[in-house]
Parts: sequence; structure tokens; C-alpha cells
Amino acid sequence: MSFILDSRIMSTCFELGEWGLSRVLLNNNSEYPWLILVPRQANVQDMDQLSQQFRQVLMDEISQLSSLVKAYFKPDKLNIGALGNIVPQLHVHVIARFSTDYSWPHGVWQANQPTIPYDDHTLTSLLGDLCGLVDVYGKSFGSLAS
Amino acid sequence: MSFILDSRIMSTCFELGEWGLSRVLLNNNSEYPWLILVPRQANVQDMDQLSQQFRQVLMDEISQLSSLVKAYFKPDKLNIGALGNIVPQLHVHVIARFSTDYSWPHGVWQANQPTIPYDDHTLTSLLGDLCGLVDVYGKSFGSLAS
Repeated sequence: MSFILDSRIMSTCFELGEWGLSRVLLNNNSEYPWLILVPRQANVQDMDQLSQQFRQVLMDEISQLSSLVKAYFKPDKLNIGALGNIVPQLHVHVIARFSTDYSWPHGVWQANQPTIPYDDHTLTSLLGDLCGLVDVYGKSFGSLAS
Repeated sequence: MSFILDSRIMSTCFELGEWGLSRVLLNNNSEYPWLILVPRQANVQDMDQLSQQFRQVLMDEISQLSSLVKAYFKPDKLNIGALGNIVPQLHVHVIARFSTDYSWPHGVWQANQPTIPYDDHTLTSLLGDLCGLVDVYGKSFGSLAS
């Protein structure tokens, strides 16, 4: 069975590019700069279900996306998470956190979180920048899974 | 500067063993089976600050601990997280989640979480089991960092 992006992720995110293993996405929530990696593997819920080779690539991609998010957003802290309680398809959150944001110092995966979509002007600018950066930061990855 | 476990982690957790890179701990909160990996590296807050070699080992250890937690606790879902908003020292949570637990389907990193320590009887039994399993599941790792 081939990989299909979960419809709940698709409906709340914008695609920024494709890396060797994962699709890179921006969550449409202006409260937090919130990027997501989704390995293009069908029927995988947890990282330990990936082959060792794909886990290592995923770790490289998490690290690379971390560096990108730090360089662009200059957060106070990165939050990395793979939960999947609501959307079981394996996806890894890479979130820029600020000591001034809504949920600080707690996690963002709470009930009653604000979900404030980006306005059109901000979104156009942000997508332009992030798509370019995802392309640049992804140059080191070959294509492993399609 | 050598590695020293953060005092807030030390005061809320029990040590289960040492793997190649990380110390393996049990959080003393009976609401969730909650294990933690702390790479024995000084002055590291985020995974992208580790060398590629150590990141790969950490991913192997996350995967190994995931398998252990799944086998022993049989959760509905694993939650993996590296946040560090309160304790910046890099530590990776591997948590067994159940659809009946207090925070389901949300994350556990919230304000006003119940923190119910294990009773002595449960703790003795659990530590015995988990120390044994951490030893068995750790056989594949050499010592990389001390």
C-alpha cells in the first residue's frame, strides 16, 4: 500500500517540500512557528516501526529541520514531538517556542489551544522563505522513499 | 565540563540503567508509564547539538526504549518528546499512553497534571522488572560516552 498523507494533516498544513524520507509541512497556526515531518511510509505509527536505515534518515531530517527553524525563527527553545494520539500516521513536530507564547512553559498539545491561521500577507512571505530554506537545507538528502 | 544529571530530573525519577549514550530513567508518576533518556553529554539542549554519530545512537536508543515500553506496558500509543522548556538539559520522554489516561488524547506536558508517586509495593516490582529489561534491551549498545 502506498503512502497517502492523512487528511487531517493535509487540511491544516501547507507543504514546504520533500526531503529524502519525509514531506516537510507548515502547520497553519500563527501562534507557534510549527513545522512537521511526515515520513512517506504507509502504515507506520511509531519511529520504532521504521527500518534502522529510515530511522537514521529521519533523525538527520529532524536535526536539519531543527537547524532551519532555529536559524529562521530564533526561538527560545525547540520542542520536538511524535505523539499521534489523534492522527496515528507517524509525524514529527518541530516547533519554535518562545517564553512569551500562549502555552509556555508547557507543551502545545493541549485542549483549547488557539488556532489562529496566518493572514494572507504573512503566509505568502513565510511560504516563500520556508520553501526556499527547505530546498537549501534538503540538498544533502537523496531520495530514499517515494 | 563533565555530564551531571539535572537535579530536577534526579529528584523526580529513578535510574533504571545506562545505555551506550544515555541514562535510562523512570519518572515517578503512576498516572503514566513514563520513561526518560538523558544523553550523558554536558551542555546539550537540543538533538541537533549532538554529533551525527551520537544522534544516530540516540535514535537507536529511542527505538529500543520504545520497543521495551510497548512490550511491557502494551499502550494504545507511544508519545515521544524532547521539550526542555523547564529543564533545558536534553532529555527524551518515551511515554506509554492509554485512551483511558488523564490527558488522552492530548499531551502530558500541561499545567495541573496529576503527579501521583508509585506506592512502595508497585515501585519495588516495577523497578525490578524495568531494570532487568533495560539491561536486556541494552545489550546491543556499546559504551560511547561516560
